[in-house]
Amino acid sequence: MKQTELCPKFEKGMSILSKRWTGLILFQLLKGRQRFCEIQDSIPVSGRLLSERLKELEKEGIVERDVFPEVPIRVEYSLTEKGEAVAPIIEAIQTWAEAWIKVD
Amino acid sequence: MKQTELCPKFEKGMSILSKRWTGLILFQLLKGRQRFCEIQDSIPVSGRLLSERLKELEKEGIVERDVFPEVPIRVEYSLTEKGEAVAPIIEAIQTWAEAWIKVD
Repeated sequence: MKQTELCPKFEKGMSILSKRWTGLILFQLLKGRQRFCEIQDSIPVSGRLLSERLKELEKEGIVERDVFPEVPIRVEYSLTEKGEAVAPIIEAIQTWAEAWIKVD
Repeated sequence: MKQTELCPKFEKGMSILSKRWTGLILFQLLKGRQRFCEIQDSIPVSGRLLSERLKELEKEGIVERDVFPEVPIRVEYSLTEKGEAVAPIIEAIQTWAEAWIKVD
């Protein structure tokens, strides 16, 4: 295996965005801040995996987790500035999919 | 699990594009048609997996495989019109990664 010629930033960005469910989570959060259960209701993903992905996205500085000390406690997820900046990517995927993808 | 609210075309498009290595393969092929070994030299992927991905992309109508009956036989991969249409997605990822991704 030779040294990759690819831009390492692109490579790392792709590896973050291309994880299973991540694109769909970002698609959801671009609509606005949401509670865990709202995201889960909109994506056919297990709670365990959704929680894992959200933690990864939080670690990457893409998603922010806000805890509201109410009773019962309320936890909401939203996009950071870095997260909001993925909007053109998601829009480009939507445009492409709308034009080229056929579903049964 | 409730019914997904997501656009099924977006969901299918994401699932095609987000497979490991697919983004990098498309990034390479957007530079122009290439032989198998050229793609392999530019991406740290095994031959088996690259071959699998290219077959999937061919089946999805994104990549075209041309065989030139020379000696030795020459096989080249290129993007179809549907494949060329992913360019704005790859560019959006590049722009985002350039602005937001830090590499060590």
